[in-house]
Amino acid sequence: MSEKVRIGVIGIGNMGSEHCRNLLSGACPELELTAVADLRASRREWAAQKLPGGIRIYDSGSRLIREADCDAVLIAAPHYQHEPLAVEAMEHGKHVLCEKPIAVSASRARHMLEVSRQTGKTLALMFNQRTNCVYRAIRQLLDSGEYGALKRMNWIVTDWYRTQKYYDSGSWRATWAGEGGGVLLNQCPHQLDLLIWLCGMPETVTARCQEGKWHRIEVEDDVTAFLTFPGGGTGVFVTSTGDLPGTNRLEIDLERGKIVCEDGQVRCRRLPESERVLCFASENPWEKPQTEETLLETDGENPQHIGVMNAFAAHLLRGEPLTASAEDGLKALTLSNAIHLAGWTGETITLPPDEERFDAMLAEKIRHSVRKETPDQTFDTDHSGTGSTAEA
Amino acid sequence: MSEKVRIGVIGIGNMGSEHCRNLLSGACPELELTAVADLRASRREWAAQKLPGGIRIYDSGSRLIREADCDAVLIAAPHYQHEPLAVEAMEHGKHVLCEKPIAVSASRARHMLEVSRQTGKTLALMFNQRTNCVYRAIRQLLDSGEYGALKRMNWIVTDWYRTQKYYDSGSWRATWAGEGGGVLLNQCPHQLDLLIWLCGMPETVTARCQEGKWHRIEVEDDVTAFLTFPGGGTGVFVTSTGDLPGTNRLEIDLERGKIVCEDGQVRCRRLPESERVLCFASENPWEKPQTEETLLETDGENPQHIGVMNAFAAHLLRGEPLTASAEDGLKALTLSNAIHLAGWTGETITLPPDEERFDAMLAEKIRHSVRKETPDQTFDTDHSGTGSTAEA
Repeated sequence: MSEKVRIGVIGIGNMGSEHCRNLLSGACPELELTAVADLRASRREWAAQKLPGGIRIYDSGSRLIREADCDAVLIAAPHYQHEPLAVEAMEHGKHVLCEKPIAVSASRARHMLEVSRQTGKTLALMFNQRTNCVYRAIRQLLDSGEYGALKRMNWIVTDWYRTQKYYDSGSWRATWAGEGGGVLLNQCPHQLDLLIWLCGMPETVTARCQEGKWHRIEVEDDVTAFLTFPGGGTGVFVTSTGDLPGTNRLEIDLERGKIVCEDGQVRCRRLPESERVLCFASENPWEKPQTEETLLETDGENPQHIGVMNAFAAHLLRGEPLTASAEDGLKALTLSNAIHLAGWTGETITLPPDEERFDAMLAEKIRHSVRKETPDQTFDTDHSGTGSTAEA
Repeated sequence: MSEKVRIGVIGIGNMGSEHCRNLLSGACPELELTAVADLRASRREWAAQKLPGGIRIYDSGSRLIREADCDAVLIAAPHYQHEPLAVEAMEHGKHVLCEKPIAVSASRARHMLEVSRQTGKTLALMFNQRTNCVYRAIRQLLDSGEYGALKRMNWIVTDWYRTQKYYDSGSWRATWAGEGGGVLLNQCPHQLDLLIWLCGMPETVTARCQEGKWHRIEVEDDVTAFLTFPGGGTGVFVTSTGDLPGTNRLEIDLERGKIVCEDGQVRCRRLPESERVLCFASENPWEKPQTEETLLETDGENPQHIGVMNAFAAHLLRGEPLTASAEDGLKALTLSNAIHLAGWTGETITLPPDEERFDAMLAEKIRHSVRKETPDQTFDTDHSGTGSTAEA
């Protein structure tokens, strides 16, 4: 590999075109954008007009993979294309940085991991929220063990507001056949990843997934999930694209205190001793030790997509750690699939869910999926902002 | 009835003795404490030493009801005694102010309401949290219709921390036979009442009730409930006596904005127009109208038990409204029973729940209930404080 990683971007819609701008901004000195691909002529015209000369433009990801002069590809195509494109790329000797979600069903993601192992090619995930100083600081605090084991978590992440216009902007959007899911698969992969990253993998999930509740769409736009964790902790995860103004508030209750992340701040209350000891040692029926609220210090850095891309390059060039691996992508998707399955069946699902059952139920949904007549649309506006601590 | 309502207090443990202090404090000028009753000699000795002469002391509620010179009784005896005592009192011509919960099972509460109708005697509930200016102001705002219909509510009320010492302070405490339930029945009747008062009666409930999760007790001390409301709103209600430091945060999302009640403050964000209109009218996929956060003004008054008692007297003397009626008590208990039943069965329960089924399952739990050997204990300390906006 040369001193720089030469990279091609597959899919230059909303997200892919932003990746191009970031790659060309000078903020990713170890990455060189050499090619882009899109199935849509309108997007290739955009590339021809807006991107510097020398960047090759392909009319399919497959062609880019086979023909372009690059070491790696960044896949920002619709969800269902993640697996075939990533597999084809790795089999043709390219490393892959894949947009979230890794795939639509865990069985497909597992196949991607196998190909990565077989080919020895890196498969990394665009979990850019992991670069946010706020979540990094929480993770560090939890990892230190200072607050003890998890007792409860409650994440209300309803600041993903979308109007009907958003869903009408693409024929594939918010359909089972085109996207494979709604808020769980499009907006929330970040939070599902962070949830696992911070609190560990849940053991069971019970959920209510309401489809087309707030919009004229066939997939879910309102989800409430109840989680249990190994060790006895419990959790609630609430998300929606229909709440306005939304909330993004993560509360984590632990044996030695409580952490609340909201509005870009992390407020901590630490107990002088473990509640689990206090509960049985105290002579006071209504014990309430004084705790001081402190703000968790962070390094203030939040490089987002640029951070993930630079880590990807550093990994390929010097073996430095990725922001998120394929395994992380599979874990987040496993939880996502489990919440879907719990919602579809009304059952409490033990993780990992039965992949065959999930795939069969999804296939049934796809069979009844209605393709919309609306033309695809790419927005030039900043589409990603969804509050202080969450970005798409 | 004389110019004052003469009242007897039945059960002078923690709560009943506080009621006596309030009645004697001069803050309830239309109520005159004329009698108290307790089955325990130790509590009667306390009354003989601490209460003014002239107040008659009885060794049972039944005797007080039949012999004491009073117009009304305040029942602060253990839960299972609420029904027989209230019925006996009304049948002997006394009005009743009953501590929460109205009873342990809705079928029994329904019987109390029937007796109240038959005898024409008032049956009121001690839902003192309704007097809190914060909840009154929210109720007024919601009643005004200014914020439109309910979309979502999320109440985390985990500031009911109790140590094992608390549960060990009475042989009846936290047993199915002695108390009939845990955090739902002892600590949360207030919040269940407020939830219904503010957001309306839920239509269905799915719940996880964990028994003896944080303490050596046989009843539930950790509950997560998922609610649906007529009209499509959803809710999450989380409570526990094992979280430290606890949280009391109520978020209500409505068509025209959001209300968050925490730390004794109510923060409001009001939309310029209904989200339900905006969603389909806006050309912006990521519409995010600017909203200003305002603090909801309140009258600052929070008379708690004294407020409920004074309203009770004013109702009897001049027909003024009660703070909470027997119907309100039945509604809160209906929701409580439904959450229990949902937790016990793992089913989604439609309200009102099958009362016979609830009673049968409770009877089964009582059959396996183990009476504790610990002697009863009454605490002189303030037992009620559970954070800024919730009190027992």
